[in-house]
Amino acid sequence: MTEQQLTGSNLIGGRESANGTERIFGLDAASGVKLSGEFVVATETEIAEAVETAYRAQGSYLEVSGPDRARFLEAVADRLASSADEMVERAQAETALSAARLKGEMTRTTSQLRMFANLVAEGSWVDARIDLAGQGTPDLRRMLVPIGPTAIFGASNFPFAFSVAGGDTASALAAGCCVIVKAHPAHPGTSELAARAIVAAACSTGMPKGVFSMIHGGAKEGSLLVQQERLESVAFTGSQAAGRSLFDLAARRPRPIPVFAEMGSVNPVFILPGALSADHGSLAQGYAASLTLGVGQFCTNPGLVIGIGEAFSAFVTQVSAELSGVSAGTMLTSQIKDKYLREAARRSESVETVVAHKGEVLPALFKVSADEFVRNPSLAEELFGPSAVAVHCGSVDQLIEVAQSLHGQLTATVHASETDNLSALAPVLAKVAGRVIYNGFPTGVAVCPAMQHGGPYPATTDSRFTSVGTAAIYRFARPVAYQDWPQNLLPEELRNENSRGIWRTVNGSLTREAS
Amino acid sequence: MTEQQLTGSNLIGGRESANGTERIFGLDAASGVKLSGEFVVATETEIAEAVETAYRAQGSYLEVSGPDRARFLEAVADRLASSADEMVERAQAETALSAARLKGEMTRTTSQLRMFANLVAEGSWVDARIDLAGQGTPDLRRMLVPIGPTAIFGASNFPFAFSVAGGDTASALAAGCCVIVKAHPAHPGTSELAARAIVAAACSTGMPKGVFSMIHGGAKEGSLLVQQERLESVAFTGSQAAGRSLFDLAARRPRPIPVFAEMGSVNPVFILPGALSADHGSLAQGYAASLTLGVGQFCTNPGLVIGIGEAFSAFVTQVSAELSGVSAGTMLTSQIKDKYLREAARRSESVETVVAHKGEVLPALFKVSADEFVRNPSLAEELFGPSAVAVHCGSVDQLIEVAQSLHGQLTATVHASETDNLSALAPVLAKVAGRVIYNGFPTGVAVCPAMQHGGPYPATTDSRFTSVGTAAIYRFARPVAYQDWPQNLLPEELRNENSRGIWRTVNGSLTREAS
Repeated sequence: MTEQQLTGSNLIGGRESANGTERIFGLDAASGVKLSGEFVVATETEIAEAVETAYRAQGSYLEVSGPDRARFLEAVADRLASSADEMVERAQAETALSAARLKGEMTRTTSQLRMFANLVAEGSWVDARIDLAGQGTPDLRRMLVPIGPTAIFGASNFPFAFSVAGGDTASALAAGCCVIVKAHPAHPGTSELAARAIVAAACSTGMPKGVFSMIHGGAKEGSLLVQQERLESVAFTGSQAAGRSLFDLAARRPRPIPVFAEMGSVNPVFILPGALSADHGSLAQGYAASLTLGVGQFCTNPGLVIGIGEAFSAFVTQVSAELSGVSAGTMLTSQIKDKYLREAARRSESVETVVAHKGEVLPALFKVSADEFVRNPSLAEELFGPSAVAVHCGSVDQLIEVAQSLHGQLTATVHASETDNLSALAPVLAKVAGRVIYNGFPTGVAVCPAMQHGGPYPATTDSRFTSVGTAAIYRFARPVAYQDWPQNLLPEELRNENSRGIWRTVNGSLTREAS
Repeated sequence: MTEQQLTGSNLIGGRESANGTERIFGLDAASGVKLSGEFVVATETEIAEAVETAYRAQGSYLEVSGPDRARFLEAVADRLASSADEMVERAQAETALSAARLKGEMTRTTSQLRMFANLVAEGSWVDARIDLAGQGTPDLRRMLVPIGPTAIFGASNFPFAFSVAGGDTASALAAGCCVIVKAHPAHPGTSELAARAIVAAACSTGMPKGVFSMIHGGAKEGSLLVQQERLESVAFTGSQAAGRSLFDLAARRPRPIPVFAEMGSVNPVFILPGALSADHGSLAQGYAASLTLGVGQFCTNPGLVIGIGEAFSAFVTQVSAELSGVSAGTMLTSQIKDKYLREAARRSESVETVVAHKGEVLPALFKVSADEFVRNPSLAEELFGPSAVAVHCGSVDQLIEVAQSLHGQLTATVHASETDNLSALAPVLAKVAGRVIYNGFPTGVAVCPAMQHGGPYPATTDSRFTSVGTAAIYRFARPVAYQDWPQNLLPEELRNENSRGIWRTVNGSLTREAS
């Protein structure tokens, strides 16, 4: 399939469906010009069909073994890799992200598909537990099974890695859940290309057709999707308003379902005196580069920087010099741009502006005292884009007060040297955030077992889970215990012989032996 | 502390507090006579104080090591064991449960405290993951930390094991969370005795005072508790109406928090032809015994039994004979008794009654066809007490239809022999329930690593978790990742030397070695 052949249909269990009358167009993010393709917004019936198809396929997909699911995910990665050039080209037009960035993101996307493939091919992730029958106690065996049909909302700012074939889809498919993606309307063409790669991979590896569907639409279609009776869970990456609205809808269902919404944060960076005393400008350079990376359109963008005294004032001056050298960027959509300019302008009405955006997508830097910051909660809210608030404290105690005042964050960073005492600050940061970083920057989220990309509300709606790294799979699984269950009816992972050689907790001890 | 010395106060961080004017009385469940003690319903201010005290203690309790938390839990178990006679006596009066049952429940309660003590003393439960720095990738280390102050609602039907010092409290304290219990008003004296055991144990093992509080109250006080800003999670065992209402309150907070509500179910038992062909009445005996155990007041009470054809009719006749021999019981409270009699009477208006309760707390058995059952969803609703609905099917296919029509369940049981083909039924049961049982009965919930006591809604509000067994601890923990974090600031579990010798996932492989 080449870009010219984009059909614009919804893909419902591999079938094209385009019964609606409303259209979405892919727009060139830089010029606003329409790109090829007319994308047909899903009707209420099509949305219901997508979930029903997933529900009907769930029984078969459940029986697909971990190694076979791994082959499916590998095939998706292969298909994406082989159409990477075309996808990067389309995504570049739709998002205005650079080709270099998008190539990197494509590599990340195929790598994370392969990471989940390895995880489920190996198989120990199911947390198998076996308690053999004892005196008066039954034989009990427990493992994780797929939660069921899962709705995934593509994000605008990562057209590959957090979109149709991104980490949410990879981890839900890896867990054994059938997936319905709502494509993000800001990159419908990129979404269709990714969806076709998944559909083709599902077909070539013999997966049930309903294992994957993709629909087009906006907020209304998203709401309809979350309310489908057969749906079992939801994953979302995007704004706090949209994430909370999906969470509320799901909680109000007759049968509530879990929503994992990753809603971004301001990712505070604390600069301690020791870090500045040894620094010769590289800290300001590093901070400015992290703040403006990808036009500041990361969930982990460090939009808040906090320091003490005159050395911090000098640091802020260095940062502003760095930011003044940055040229105007193009944001993902004109709506996102308008919102950035509007909110930055509003903020500059009440707060001292160090660097102004001048009506273009240029970095913006604001400056407040710690007291002002704690008094005015709106300063701690995310302003999506290359914008930051610098908070000036008079003492370490005041800096800790600022940390304590923060809402939940994806990340919290501290820059320090051995002369700084972190014993009071460190626990506050670990309480506020899902990931704490020492002498680094929060942008750049490694995809690995130890990653935590999540955090207390409002960073996410459930701090117990992550959306990046191998542990992301646990959002989409629930445990089932089998009591005195016949060996031949048990899932392979729980049978005595442990034919897959996975790690299991047998009578309380981890082992790869048979039981 | 002997029963005569019950003060009736709320216990807020070890301090007595009784500012309210409303009183709760412990009633003898059999006679309705007031027992000793006047229990003071907590005021709104006291509820806020209890959570604030927990919040302030959370920082210190976080720093208490796993082994020290284990000593605290062991001390609680020791204190309970040493006042077991007195507690059983009071609980027997307040609940009308038998002394034998209560002694068993006390043993279960102290055992599960010791089980969680062992779990956190060993320490691997924190799921430590270490990805050492690589080329261009940072050093990342991730583990579970306590989610924070947790509200726990005691259940009426297990005055020890699911109440003040029960599994929820044990697992939350084990996870490192400060706990605020709302005592169940049906056994306030038993609750005070348990709370005093915890407070004394916290004191003798040097825990921060706010680690545990207990308040008295009803639905209003429970609502106030769940809405306290500093609260981080909620665990509840009880009715669907009350559980859902707490879930809704928590979801509607400005900052939503997770609620794990275990709300019971009807625990279907499927009797296949093969099981009956070899049976000589023991199945009916076993079923009737499970149904009437503890006057049917278990979450896992098997209130629905499904079978095929004439052999099943004969089985139902055997069950009704068994049930007719059961003498009248005393329920936990007069309200529960009234509700049982009222609902059973209402059911008998529209459904064929095989065994009637005759206005006393006697077993009730109803009989419907599969079609009737599927058409009338109210028949699948829990009727708390020794009451069951027998569903007559014409074929295995129809029996599977009945299974597919069910809402989420804590358990689903099948009785079969080798001549029965379970390949179609087994996956349906594992989809519907958290625990599936072969040739056994659901009452009796083993406390062990492989137990799953949970299930899809409405059995619980979050099927991803359990409230019994070692895995119950995961309700109260969230992961934090430490990126390039200095060794001396890392939690002990994540430092290179692995001084506690716990299992960790280092660069993707499980090991107990240093990193």
